[in-house]
Amino acid sequence: MVRVVILGQGYVASIFASGLEKIKAGKLEPYGVPLADELPIKIKDIEIVGSYDVDASKVEKDLYEVVRAYDPEAPESLKGITVRKGIHLRSLRNLPIEATGLDDEMSLKEAVERLVSEWKELKPDVFVNVCTTEAFVPFESREGLEKAIEEDNRDRLTATQVYVYAAAKYAKEVGGAAFVNAIPTLIANDPVYVELAKESNLVVFGDDGATGATPLTADVLSHLAQRNRYVLDIAQFNIGGNNDFLALTDKERNKSKEFTKSSIVKDLLGYDAPHYIKPTGFLEPLGDKKFIAMHIEYVSFNGAHDELVITGRINDSPALAGLLVDLVRLGKIAVEKKEFGTVYEVNAFYMKNPGPGDRKSIPKIIAYEKLRQWAGLKPRWL
Amino acid sequence: MVRVVILGQGYVASIFASGLEKIKAGKLEPYGVPLADELPIKIKDIEIVGSYDVDASKVEKDLYEVVRAYDPEAPESLKGITVRKGIHLRSLRNLPIEATGLDDEMSLKEAVERLVSEWKELKPDVFVNVCTTEAFVPFESREGLEKAIEEDNRDRLTATQVYVYAAAKYAKEVGGAAFVNAIPTLIANDPVYVELAKESNLVVFGDDGATGATPLTADVLSHLAQRNRYVLDIAQFNIGGNNDFLALTDKERNKSKEFTKSSIVKDLLGYDAPHYIKPTGFLEPLGDKKFIAMHIEYVSFNGAHDELVITGRINDSPALAGLLVDLVRLGKIAVEKKEFGTVYEVNAFYMKNPGPGDRKSIPKIIAYEKLRQWAGLKPRWL
Amino acid sequence: MVRVVILGQGYVASIFASGLEKIKAGKLEPYGVPLADELPIKIKDIEIVGSYDVDASKVEKDLYEVVRAYDPEAPESLKGITVRKGIHLRSLRNLPIEATGLDDEMSLKEAVERLVSEWKELKPDVFVNVCTTEAFVPFESREGLEKAIEEDNRDRLTATQVYVYAAAKYAKEVGGAAFVNAIPTLIANDPVYVELAKESNLVVFGDDGATGATPLTADVLSHLAQRNRYVLDIAQFNIGGNNDFLALTDKERNKSKEFTKSSIVKDLLGYDAPHYIKPTGFLEPLGDKKFIAMHIEYVSFNGAHDELVITGRINDSPALAGLLVDLVRLGKIAVEKKEFGTVYEVNAFYMKNPGPGDRKSIPKIIAYEKLRQWAGLKPRWL
Amino acid sequence: MVRVVILGQGYVASIFASGLEKIKAGKLEPYGVPLADELPIKIKDIEIVGSYDVDASKVEKDLYEVVRAYDPEAPESLKGITVRKGIHLRSLRNLPIEATGLDDEMSLKEAVERLVSEWKELKPDVFVNVCTTEAFVPFESREGLEKAIEEDNRDRLTATQVYVYAAAKYAKEVGGAAFVNAIPTLIANDPVYVELAKESNLVVFGDDGATGATPLTADVLSHLAQRNRYVLDIAQFNIGGNNDFLALTDKERNKSKEFTKSSIVKDLLGYDAPHYIKPTGFLEPLGDKKFIAMHIEYVSFNGAHDELVITGRINDSPALAGLLVDLVRLGKIAVEKKEFGTVYEVNAFYMKNPGPGDRKSIPKIIAYEKLRQWAGLKPRWL
Repeated sequence: MVRVVILGQGYVASIFASGLEKIKAGKLEPYGVPLADELPIKIKDIEIVGSYDVDASKVEKDLYEVVRAYDPEAPESLKGITVRKGIHLRSLRNLPIEATGLDDEMSLKEAVERLVSEWKELKPDVFVNVCTTEAFVPFESREGLEKAIEEDNRDRLTATQVYVYAAAKYAKEVGGAAFVNAIPTLIANDPVYVELAKESNLVVFGDDGATGATPLTADVLSHLAQRNRYVLDIAQFNIGGNNDFLALTDKERNKSKEFTKSSIVKDLLGYDAPHYIKPTGFLEPLGDKKFIAMHIEYVSFNGAHDELVITGRINDSPALAGLLVDLVRLGKIAVEKKEFGTVYEVNAFYMKNPGPGDRKSIPKIIAYEKLRQWAGLKPRWL
Repeated sequence: MVRVVILGQGYVASIFASGLEKIKAGKLEPYGVPLADELPIKIKDIEIVGSYDVDASKVEKDLYEVVRAYDPEAPESLKGITVRKGIHLRSLRNLPIEATGLDDEMSLKEAVERLVSEWKELKPDVFVNVCTTEAFVPFESREGLEKAIEEDNRDRLTATQVYVYAAAKYAKEVGGAAFVNAIPTLIANDPVYVELAKESNLVVFGDDGATGATPLTADVLSHLAQRNRYVLDIAQFNIGGNNDFLALTDKERNKSKEFTKSSIVKDLLGYDAPHYIKPTGFLEPLGDKKFIAMHIEYVSFNGAHDELVITGRINDSPALAGLLVDLVRLGKIAVEKKEFGTVYEVNAFYMKNPGPGDRKSIPKIIAYEKLRQWAGLKPRWL
Repeated sequence: MVRVVILGQGYVASIFASGLEKIKAGKLEPYGVPLADELPIKIKDIEIVGSYDVDASKVEKDLYEVVRAYDPEAPESLKGITVRKGIHLRSLRNLPIEATGLDDEMSLKEAVERLVSEWKELKPDVFVNVCTTEAFVPFESREGLEKAIEEDNRDRLTATQVYVYAAAKYAKEVGGAAFVNAIPTLIANDPVYVELAKESNLVVFGDDGATGATPLTADVLSHLAQRNRYVLDIAQFNIGGNNDFLALTDKERNKSKEFTKSSIVKDLLGYDAPHYIKPTGFLEPLGDKKFIAMHIEYVSFNGAHDELVITGRINDSPALAGLLVDLVRLGKIAVEKKEFGTVYEVNAFYMKNPGPGDRKSIPKIIAYEKLRQWAGLKPRWL
Repeated sequence: MVRVVILGQGYVASIFASGLEKIKAGKLEPYGVPLADELPIKIKDIEIVGSYDVDASKVEKDLYEVVRAYDPEAPESLKGITVRKGIHLRSLRNLPIEATGLDDEMSLKEAVERLVSEWKELKPDVFVNVCTTEAFVPFESREGLEKAIEEDNRDRLTATQVYVYAAAKYAKEVGGAAFVNAIPTLIANDPVYVELAKESNLVVFGDDGATGATPLTADVLSHLAQRNRYVLDIAQFNIGGNNDFLALTDKERNKSKEFTKSSIVKDLLGYDAPHYIKPTGFLEPLGDKKFIAMHIEYVSFNGAHDELVITGRINDSPALAGLLVDLVRLGKIAVEKKEFGTVYEVNAFYMKNPGPGDRKSIPKIIAYEKLRQWAGLKPRWL
């Protein structure tokens, strides 16, 4: 059994909850879940035990009601869990949403205590963080982090940074827990947090779930690299109509993407081919199904110039939600293996910015086989 | 030193010769050559010692003149080799080319003897077969093959089938040689030929050089498979203006492509997703730079439907020619290692239809690491 | 009021019937109907009074049942019309459908009489022909046509050729009717049929409804032509999963597409740029939503080479069905205007192969304004 | 004979000069010149008599040397014209170019006098303005404009605004001239300038030459509009590596594009479909050959949803340069016709933002026929 608490009951978390329940009920194939039936912990063993949000229209609502707004076919088995009030710390700033949070009512220190105490009742094994993309600054020292909490320094901290702090406190008290950070805020890449996790019996997976065009770009670049084709330039656009794209039109918030290893191109090719890779715009009618376009130009043998163009329509939230079904189970497994801190073998496959900070990007197909090895599964193709 | 004899001095062989000489002269980077400087045998150690063709306008011409028709910037270092008369056996049928071959002047048995005797003078280590795509029937028994040669059964044999037979004879006499079969005719996948090779100190690599859209499709399918996305359908078109596309408009010849493992989809996905993957047409102004278009539709988590479209302009001949620069060196290495017969580790990366016949397709990135291992190189990403 | 008889109750006719009823009921916007509310005859004035088919599983069924197989949301207002037995004459050959037709029970001459007699009861103003694409040979003389009917020469005639013959007989008797030929069989382009129509008070519109990639290609070519860009080559692929694509895998039937003016390229550019434009393949899971891909390369000023690639997913049947909503009304209008024979102004916009046979293709945007003029509407942009 | 003075000897003007001379020498077909040989004034009658720039590395150089930097095959017939010093007024701000201008040496009023005096020697019929895209504010009154010049208000004026002012002065003195404004600065759309032109015997064509993806988008939207398909959303990206894309990364400058009628969507569709249409980024290796990507989603008949994706590589400068070969001739013709002020019939086809300000965008194919009519040519397709 894996008991899961969701932090941020938005599109991704709602598709996760809805798809999970449908699979458990045998109504849906586990497509989009990489390790589907292969792990020792089965999908039917996952149980959502709590959910937090800071959208005033969601807090205190039944999870079923909230999920149904994203997926009209949400199953009724989601009924019975009430969405609780989380921490916002400006995370909804500039979005057309009314925010409400524990931080409106008490100090951050008190909020952390409140959360830990709630979690000791809910008894989660794994936290899944799918908050809105935040504008953040990584921490440089443990003291800085502790001081910011202590002094209630709301300008220095983001919701995610407080949630992980609280999760570490909780894990230390109960003996172990995992935190899946699926958004760009640096956690598994921030040595301060990895150290805190190690000391607290916390596993952190992160950062920034590897969905959308980037993992595909990575595999196409690997395809070219292994044939020693010389990449001249890479342009990658994507435009969507969900809240995540809306949030990225906010300049400060968009900067958080800059902390994502821009070294994917260099890591895979061995040189830094000129590239333009960033979220491009917001266009509401596209909804959650973003449009991606990619152009790659390279030199082949005898100086020949080739060109590839990839376009597509990709559902943003399901792509990440499917990975979460693996990640919560792998989180529990890592806790059982007592691999506290962070686990590169997991991050390398599932994350855009795999922690710890000093590890390079590798082709996802290779990462996939390394992941299987870590998880004790037999190689698929190796 | 690797001494190379070319069989079929068309587009691919001419780009191979031209690019090779430019790299040797330090005028060109070895882009498009996967293992470039990594192998113990260096590119500058490759020497073309002979070339065969059956186009009346090429036979007896200087190699430089022939190559220059394909690459106006061919280097003069190609001067001094005369293109010799090979075997055609209908291989140019229906093409707007006047054919001339040893088979017009003597029996096949005599032609084989003539070739072996010429080769004993030229002393090649490796044969590179880049004839025009043939309409062929694989052999079911060694006796059948021997009998067809003996009885001069020209309707049963293709040029490639005779060339490998002659190469085996030559390898047996000189103690070892390699034959790189870059076209679809089944050789490394035909147990009769693999057995013949083993007995004759011949290494055969094949079949059908892995260029163009198919290896990319393979990597994209692997990308989806490892995420457990369910592929609904795959359409892949390509159209070009070189002789290879012209030849494929000939129905009988096109059938030879049918022997290519159509199991790539099943091998990689684990199920046989409906697909339409075949060369589509001939459009002269496209020349050697073909246009490819691919459409893939799949199911992601929670039943979401995604779509990918890949289009591109890809130079056909350089893609294969770059691989040949590795293959001739790997051929020599295999002979040195006495790995006679065929070598799956090499075929799996470089060939569309990797022999031996009972081996499956695997993702090319995995094949690449296996190849490196076989060649004694350190892993790149593994 | 326009009374309509459908010939061939397949995908297109079913979407036509379903969409028409939804629009009439105010449940659907008339998107995809070019002249929507602009014509003096309104959409609500169209009434389907009869339907013919030769698929044994459809004949004698209620129209509602048949349509629902194509559109699960078909409105119940379709109930009450029984699908009648038409003429097949091999039109379903090689398709996985059991055919049944009047021609199985009587001579063609008798079948014609039967149809005319039924129609005199149904009193249609307009016939819409959306049979499966046929393998046909145009008629060279009126005598040839009359003789083929007289002598029951089933190998010489197709269903469409017999239907128009019957419609002409009917029109002559009742004083006027229109026949919309939406499939490639040459009718509006066959002088024999146009002459027959003129004498019989019949209007024929045709041939081959202008849907899919070709009209778009036409407009893109016009775009280039008016800028005097020199087109080097055009490749256009399309693949789909409906019966129309299945039928086109039948070689003989595919030939019928060859009668379609291949002169569109020459008509619009002023020279015959090399092109490859044909239906490419059948891939069942694509269903009615075909995938198209187009590549165009051209020379711009100062010798610069540009490239355009267009891809798309397009619903095949609705595109044609929407045009039919205009065509049946324009048919009635043409009858009222007594423009018997064929009407280029209508054909030029709505048809791929606009009759009469000696008229050229023009850019669709120009054709659109000419059509408006003919229909007495004010110019939109001119 | 048409005597031309170029304002801004960058990429477009250099390709214009080079291509023009090659066509005049019979070495190049006039591809990309819409009215090529059709106008009464022939291409060979165009003569470049002067060129102005503000790049310190170009001023005082021979035109041939400057052009050769953009086109290595520039013809030597360009020799003999010296590039003169123009006005910059911050137009190169933030670009990696050292600027030098008359405005560095004298007041704007004096600069205008200097230009007029030089022009009275050069005797141009037509000015072609292809300066770098400027950050500008349109003028609201003639007094404002006169006062800004008089008071040497350099923050209020751009180079283009001063050039047109000077050209008007010149035209008034010599009896007539034309000014082709190929950049976004509002001139033909600014009533103040149109009025000034009318009074001064000046013809102004403008604004913003219609090249690249936007005219194609316009024709695709017209294609959909005339079929009454309902457009849900339009995304259009483009990325390039020339100075124009570099300049657009400057936020203030990019704003100048905002004055371009964003009403193209509404004008053509009849409603303002949600759209994202803007230059997207700078990627140096793409050079002058930009990459465009466009996604359009629409509703067809019976509620069916279709999608089109257009991608391409398009040479930016030749596309505009080819139009200039027509525009300078049409400028002379308009002067001869004494159509002072601006000419919608010309602007509607050649400009993205056709003046005067109150005129709508129309499909380019229609604009083309109207242009032909204005120019006294027979209709092409109408």
